[in-house]
Amino acid sequence: MTLSTQATTRRERVTALMHRAQDELVHAFEEADGQERFREHRWERPGGGGGRARVIEGGAVFERGGVNVSAVHGARVPESLARQHPGIEGMPYFATGVSMVLHPRNPYVPAFHANYRYFEVGDALHPSEVWWFGGGADMTPSYPFVEDGEHFHGTLKALCDRHAVADYTGWKTACDDYFTVRHRGEMRGIGGIFFDEITPAGQGDFEEQVAFVEDGLATLLSSYLPVIERRKDTAFGERERAWQAIRRGRYVEFNLVYDRGTAFGLQTQGNIEAILMSMPPMAAWRFDYRPEHGTAEEAALAFYQPRVWVGGNQGMFHVERRDS
Amino acid sequence: MTLSTQATTRRERVTALMHRAQDELVHAFEEADGQERFREHRWERPGGGGGRARVIEGGAVFERGGVNVSAVHGARVPESLARQHPGIEGMPYFATGVSMVLHPRNPYVPAFHANYRYFEVGDALHPSEVWWFGGGADMTPSYPFVEDGEHFHGTLKALCDRHAVADYTGWKTACDDYFTVRHRGEMRGIGGIFFDEITPAGQGDFEEQVAFVEDGLATLLSSYLPVIERRKDTAFGERERAWQAIRRGRYVEFNLVYDRGTAFGLQTQGNIEAILMSMPPMAAWRFDYRPEHGTAEEAALAFYQPRVWVGGNQGMFHVERRDS
Repeated sequence: MTLSTQATTRRERVTALMHRAQDELVHAFEEADGQERFREHRWERPGGGGGRARVIEGGAVFERGGVNVSAVHGARVPESLARQHPGIEGMPYFATGVSMVLHPRNPYVPAFHANYRYFEVGDALHPSEVWWFGGGADMTPSYPFVEDGEHFHGTLKALCDRHAVADYTGWKTACDDYFTVRHRGEMRGIGGIFFDEITPAGQGDFEEQVAFVEDGLATLLSSYLPVIERRKDTAFGERERAWQAIRRGRYVEFNLVYDRGTAFGLQTQGNIEAILMSMPPMAAWRFDYRPEHGTAEEAALAFYQPRVWVGGNQGMFHVERRDS
Repeated sequence: MTLSTQATTRRERVTALMHRAQDELVHAFEEADGQERFREHRWERPGGGGGRARVIEGGAVFERGGVNVSAVHGARVPESLARQHPGIEGMPYFATGVSMVLHPRNPYVPAFHANYRYFEVGDALHPSEVWWFGGGADMTPSYPFVEDGEHFHGTLKALCDRHAVADYTGWKTACDDYFTVRHRGEMRGIGGIFFDEITPAGQGDFEEQVAFVEDGLATLLSSYLPVIERRKDTAFGERERAWQAIRRGRYVEFNLVYDRGTAFGLQTQGNIEAILMSMPPMAAWRFDYRPEHGTAEEAALAFYQPRVWVGGNQGMFHVERRDS
């Protein structure tokens, strides 16, 4: 088998994995919603490839959300990636991934975001062994339930513990750091895991990493669905919706100001609707809003600072807020 | 009179002008609202100076808005400005300005934004003759009324026609270009005027420019108040509020992704609440939303492309949409 055939096999396997994950996730989220279905929107990229966005709006559980798969290729590696990986400038590339954002209606159910992606340099005429996986999952509650955070982080830690190549502690710290609304000095939510590359590009074992990604995708449901089930029937009113809208405003601030994927998509004229699928159905801003002392909303603020959720040997202390 | 004394006089005069404008604007907007008052929030900048934010929320006419003045100084010109103006690197600076954003409740009343600012290099120990004024005003309707656009642009053109140093046609084109939500290929609203510098920094006549700025500040009320009066009692319902929320989503996208002042403020850890005073009270996102054919909402879309509003010799054609 030649290198180029191996590469074709790799990208075909990962693309199939992403599409299968999309099917399974959408099916499970439709079951959880119990009322609304996802609608499919296919789009093509002028430069090569395209995607399959599946979107839910106005559901019983999910007010807005999407599970999107894209598989694109191009003649030249995007500049921003070439800068990070010397030696791949000007090479053809292929990229595929699945990404999802769910904004539940009930303010007691956290929002959820996850993404697994694969990038590969070269094609049949320009063989290369440079490829990498990136991804992560994070949760954004408006109300603070310790058991939800412990469950979510617990499933991610267990996932990482099953794979020698994974690093829960490092990826959890990277996630806390990445999903920070810097101008507010607070995280978007309670983090999770985040990794740009499982191992440095081109240096990893493909089978080991594809096994981790497959497990990671399967773990998304067991990390989130139990939290949905636990909170989706909690009664709420205008007060909770108003707080949820403020927190969604912070979500918007993060995604439009800091999220690298969003910035990259907007700059490269990607599919706007698929990129901005991450936006909440609505968001609100109020001047210098601070929850009243002693309320659940005030208690939630403590959740938006780095915190040890699972893992005994990390001790009982909280990581200090960064100043940068 | 020494150079440094002249500089002190300049900055004192402009600062007083900005504060006086804030007083007058707030007074007029309170009269227009008829119900709610602006609340004042003073803030200090750790590096030097501070500001006086005046904020209205939950008014009869204004759902959210603010008129802010800041006057700050520092030991070294910010890098982004030094790059644009060679020769001022490492110099002390002073900056003052008034900026305002009004988000009316009634979807038929356009949102309004304006800013006049003054930047000056040097201090008593480091004399410099480098200073410049920047600014502009623009309007963002959710519904398309030609007479409102003609009135608004007409007052700005008349303002510019009264001052030899002003350039309505050039500044109107710059405004169309600046306030473009590039990833959507549409403007935030119907533009107005926008200028980074009235004349290249350090080359202008101060008296001529301060006279223009004074007139420009006074013109804000005559350009906007008649539009408020004409639309504020128009009946509206859920449909119009939903469309307004979608348009406010585009406003948020522009401000967080493209607005240079917002980016600069967030990066330099300015007063977050004063910077994000520009955010609407609420905003909404829907997947691939397109107004129905033949509706007023669909007609509004044509307003978000560059358009000749006033000025005979520019002919009857519309400027073509830019591809960049």
